[in-house]
Amino acid sequence: MENNQFKQACLEKIIADHQSGSAKIAFVALQSLADYSQRSVMTEPATYLKDLNSFALELQQTRPSMAMLTNIIDAWRQEVNKNENKNPQSNLMTLKQVALVKANGLMMQSSQANDRIVQHVCELIADKSVVLTHSISSTIINCFTKLAKKKISAIITESRPGNEGLLVAEMLSKSGIETQYITDAQLGLFMPKADVVLLGADSILADGSVVNKAGTYLTALAAHDVGIPLYICAENFKQSRKTYETIHLEEMDTTEINLPDLPHIEPRNIYFDVTPARLISGWINEHGVQTITGVPST
Amino acid sequence: MENNQFKQACLEKIIADHQSGSAKIAFVALQSLADYSQRSVMTEPATYLKDLNSFALELQQTRPSMAMLTNIIDAWRQEVNKNENKNPQSNLMTLKQVALVKANGLMMQSSQANDRIVQHVCELIADKSVVLTHSISSTIINCFTKLAKKKISAIITESRPGNEGLLVAEMLSKSGIETQYITDAQLGLFMPKADVVLLGADSILADGSVVNKAGTYLTALAAHDVGIPLYICAENFKQSRKTYETIHLEEMDTTEINLPDLPHIEPRNIYFDVTPARLISGWINEHGVQTITGVPST
Repeated sequence: MENNQFKQACLEKIIADHQSGSAKIAFVALQSLADYSQRSVMTEPATYLKDLNSFALELQQTRPSMAMLTNIIDAWRQEVNKNENKNPQSNLMTLKQVALVKANGLMMQSSQANDRIVQHVCELIADKSVVLTHSISSTIINCFTKLAKKKISAIITESRPGNEGLLVAEMLSKSGIETQYITDAQLGLFMPKADVVLLGADSILADGSVVNKAGTYLTALAAHDVGIPLYICAENFKQSRKTYETIHLEEMDTTEINLPDLPHIEPRNIYFDVTPARLISGWINEHGVQTITGVPST
Repeated sequence: MENNQFKQACLEKIIADHQSGSAKIAFVALQSLADYSQRSVMTEPATYLKDLNSFALELQQTRPSMAMLTNIIDAWRQEVNKNENKNPQSNLMTLKQVALVKANGLMMQSSQANDRIVQHVCELIADKSVVLTHSISSTIINCFTKLAKKKISAIITESRPGNEGLLVAEMLSKSGIETQYITDAQLGLFMPKADVVLLGADSILADGSVVNKAGTYLTALAAHDVGIPLYICAENFKQSRKTYETIHLEEMDTTEINLPDLPHIEPRNIYFDVTPARLISGWINEHGVQTITGVPST
């Protein structure tokens, strides 16, 4: 495949992926950068770097609601560009190696962060708890896989319109976790049956509010009303400096809504909502459980 | 059609109707009773009444979450049986006529109640308001039809799994009302764009809490959190003496959830939830807007 075609294919794949969580999408983007860094045909170090940086920016812009995509690629660019600034004489081969090694290093760092989150979650959740989640998150799936040993059961939502809940159901089924599968509209009905809510995040905004799949805000309202603790499980790469006012909430193709053409009726398909920090019991990152006061809860 | 077949067909039609609001279902049931009262082949007044009463009870039991079905048939039975008690010598022809006239009278009474509710709603809603609703209600559809003149616009939900929102969309389209059509999960996202929430009800419980399509509780939580007034539009026939503890919330066929067979994963399809009175700004019945203090608001 020609290199421009390769880049285009990578971008389109990420734009079209409406089911994966943001960590998985960030990994796919970083892997695309790593692959592209090796197949580049640029011969001058400066041109090579400029081309890589430009592809990196294009990848970041594919999914503006996902802080992790921005952050992990920023971190990669910083490392790669820093190397060039320190060693302006770097030859192309060194640069290519740095690009690859740094990408792999960041993916490793993120995986380790996720392992630690899973550990913190497993310490928090009591045996035989009923855990409710909405939408899909690779972090939460990893938690469930480990929590299976604690004989927990689950309540999960279908998560219209992408129906990511089906993927979650398939994975919980394999882990042998007894699961109730509900429509998004039944979230309030089933909340009193849950002991705890665990959710991933696409971004954590400056004030701790959480950008995640549409319906997360409703989940949090119901948990708060019923008095069920709700934790956001997200590595530090998902921290964003954006606020409710500056975050862009992506709207996807409205054909997913399956509405026939009707005069005056406009289908809407905004994928993400923002859950205020006041509805969240704690944020679990690689360093432990953070609460609104900043003191890790035990 | 043989009479037993006719009764069976009436019962099955009501059980299978997952899209109509409770007022429409109550009308269909009462019409079935009226039709049956005329085609009965019973020759003794006492046997005739016993048979009618038994069919009435069967009809009431089809949809336990719908107070109006219980109440309007109770009212009909009371009128018909009262006539018999007063005039034990009634001949069959008189009884048949009473059964028909009382059914038609109750339907007329309910229609007039709904007309008055629509009037009260039209007085309440300002020109160019953005009105949000969830699920389907014939009362709310009638309100929208009248409100079209006030150049209101609408936000409506698809209302999984029955997708009653599609029927609402078709009707609003015909009324020329500019409408945004969203997934149930987007209810929280779109609440800040609404000026008022109007909802129907399947039952109003003893303490004012409302049984309505699953997702109503989430809608009310979001309206309350954002500070948008929410009104329940329901005639007095929907008042129930039941409480949260005694109401039965119907679960429908889980094939509607479209989940493939997966070990350990159980689809759930409870159709109704209960919204506490504290989340409701007012109840609009034929007598006006009632608030929690019982004083009509202006």
